[in-house]
Amino acid sequence: MFSQDQIKALAQPTPSKIILLVLDGLGGLPRMETGKTELETAQTPNLNNLAAKSICGLSQPVGPGITAGSAPGHTALFGYDPFAVNIGRGVLEAVGIDFPIEQGDVLARGNYCTVDGNGIITDRRAGRIATELNAGLCKLLEMKIDDIQVLTAPVKDYRFVICFRGAGLRDAVSETDPQHEGMKPLQVTATTAGAIKTANIANQFVERAMKILADKHPANMLLLRGFSREPEILSMQAIYKLKPAVVATYPMYRGLARLVGMANLPTGATFADEIKTVKEHYNDHDFFFVHIKPTDAAGEDGDFDRKVKILEDVDKILPDLLNLNPDVIVVTADHSTPAMLKGHSWHTVPTMIYSKYCRPDKVVEFSESGCLGGGLGIFPATDIMPLAMANALKLNKFGA
Amino acid sequence: MFSQDQIKALAQPTPSKIILLVLDGLGGLPRMETGKTELETAQTPNLNNLAAKSICGLSQPVGPGITAGSAPGHTALFGYDPFAVNIGRGVLEAVGIDFPIEQGDVLARGNYCTVDGNGIITDRRAGRIATELNAGLCKLLEMKIDDIQVLTAPVKDYRFVICFRGAGLRDAVSETDPQHEGMKPLQVTATTAGAIKTANIANQFVERAMKILADKHPANMLLLRGFSREPEILSMQAIYKLKPAVVATYPMYRGLARLVGMANLPTGATFADEIKTVKEHYNDHDFFFVHIKPTDAAGEDGDFDRKVKILEDVDKILPDLLNLNPDVIVVTADHSTPAMLKGHSWHTVPTMIYSKYCRPDKVVEFSESGCLGGGLGIFPATDIMPLAMANALKLNKFGA
Repeated sequence: MFSQDQIKALAQPTPSKIILLVLDGLGGLPRMETGKTELETAQTPNLNNLAAKSICGLSQPVGPGITAGSAPGHTALFGYDPFAVNIGRGVLEAVGIDFPIEQGDVLARGNYCTVDGNGIITDRRAGRIATELNAGLCKLLEMKIDDIQVLTAPVKDYRFVICFRGAGLRDAVSETDPQHEGMKPLQVTATTAGAIKTANIANQFVERAMKILADKHPANMLLLRGFSREPEILSMQAIYKLKPAVVATYPMYRGLARLVGMANLPTGATFADEIKTVKEHYNDHDFFFVHIKPTDAAGEDGDFDRKVKILEDVDKILPDLLNLNPDVIVVTADHSTPAMLKGHSWHTVPTMIYSKYCRPDKVVEFSESGCLGGGLGIFPATDIMPLAMANALKLNKFGA
Repeated sequence: MFSQDQIKALAQPTPSKIILLVLDGLGGLPRMETGKTELETAQTPNLNNLAAKSICGLSQPVGPGITAGSAPGHTALFGYDPFAVNIGRGVLEAVGIDFPIEQGDVLARGNYCTVDGNGIITDRRAGRIATELNAGLCKLLEMKIDDIQVLTAPVKDYRFVICFRGAGLRDAVSETDPQHEGMKPLQVTATTAGAIKTANIANQFVERAMKILADKHPANMLLLRGFSREPEILSMQAIYKLKPAVVATYPMYRGLARLVGMANLPTGATFADEIKTVKEHYNDHDFFFVHIKPTDAAGEDGDFDRKVKILEDVDKILPDLLNLNPDVIVVTADHSTPAMLKGHSWHTVPTMIYSKYCRPDKVVEFSESGCLGGGLGIFPATDIMPLAMANALKLNKFGA
């Protein structure tokens, strides 16, 4: 991989515009009966037309055989080494809801959960309680422990953010979520000596929270995951000389985008709303990361047919986005989410890059099998940004 | 390449089973008259059927243009960086015959050879003397030189192991085998200052051995290769949380497998014997490395037709292995051995990975040309283990 410093040295601002359209969890696996994946099953004439004019390939989110979480999957798409940039779940959730992080804060993601009389977890998601109930409970959990302030903020359903604020906090502590029901929540332990204070504070917090939540069934306990602090990373403005913006309906993706410097453009709940948002701000930015969540959600639910339907719906209104005539449009995903696996997977991701200068290949179907013969081959997702920048004529020549 | 530490952090034990079937030296080159390689010439309906259900590709043993020896070829297949793991030939041979290595031992591979009256090598393999004769000669060569004990053990035909045991030995010394007939054996030289004692001992040993062997024509001299000490490497158990086992008819491959922690399952001389061995131990392990030697031997002998025949023989009994219903089966090789080159070569290796979740491509012929269009593309052999682990659902998600 060309280093970001090298890209930075070559990047130049130009008026050309790039749209990075991420159909989350796009890639799939074939249904037994037909031998076709979700994308191969869907009728997607507009994606196929675009593929015919594009250079296509299969991107590898973080490495062969490795299933990418959303954070490394997107970090790679934005051109950052997903191993060098470590964005914890706590920070992600916090940024995604505009939580005002201060320097030194340690953030964690909280899940309300249900425990039985013996403290055994019976539902890791507390029956997916309503966000309003979550908000009420969060207020009860704000407290001071020694010199540390504990702040909370609801995210969605049973998920919330917890912020430990004060001197001497570290994020090198373990999670309390045992990842399985039928077990008790775990103690927080410090993984470095410097984090002992943080572990103690977190354990005290959990103990007090347990008492506060005792009569709040089904949300009568909480689990803490992804203790983390804001990472120090160069912004996309600094690296690519872009004015980047994010259009996403789900907080985590906005959060991730804002960590790399993207402006958040508030939008509605549908792809049509998102396209409208891009249109409205088209003159203010030269890079738009447009995130589509329902493809991934359908895959996670194991709903092959719904994923097909969503892909067809996306395809129907794709022309509205193309009508903006961006100089470069990339269609890809952060990872595959095959309905068959009901979750993220390691499989490569159909990807196409359109520009006037892309050198189209012979691919006429935007799909897993179609992209296999494409001009991009099988390639690391971290190559997408340099390729998009090149196609936008935003990268100077390297060397004399 | 995803680091082994990263893989280690993601690996989880599950009941699923992986079979790694290595057809040593599998890849070939086309015969002039037909334009077809050994594998393309062979009738292999079972391999082809499996390919149709698999994801296929061409693996690169250690790098483009680089001809892999057996050790780096296999090291890469097991997921180890073949440049970071340096397993000398001496250690390999010793482990392969269960030679009881002690800490600090320097091991070399010995070849009996024939020299003429002027000490010029006339046969580097001493007419491939019988193993029994070899064993008798080895006994004559055990001796003490200063404080160093010299131990020997026969391997097979003209090959034996020699072990230098005692304080202050190093393996940074050169070989005595000039690699060509018509030359005299070389002096051992130290390549670091610390290895001078070892070089002196080795030269003294060769001098005494020459006298001992003088009347033992055709084995009237010996050559020493691959001075080495046991490398310190993490086991496959530690990295992959597997219970791995090796089924191989030839000592060196067993030795290599055992260096990375595989249990050795004693077996017979044929592929059918090897399958029987896998069957007998199927419940005790979740990873089976099954090594087939004759493909490579036929290639080394330049015998195109014999290699074709062996591939067809392997294909005929392949169903017995498939009937075990492993969750993942990988068919590949450590390197190509084209009959045309009578030796290992740098060419890519036909490889397929079958699992329920592999995302099959359009490849229906398991061959060099067939695999070229496969979904794995042209890829480093070190990717095979992460991909096999992923397909066995033994790797957790990376990142939130």
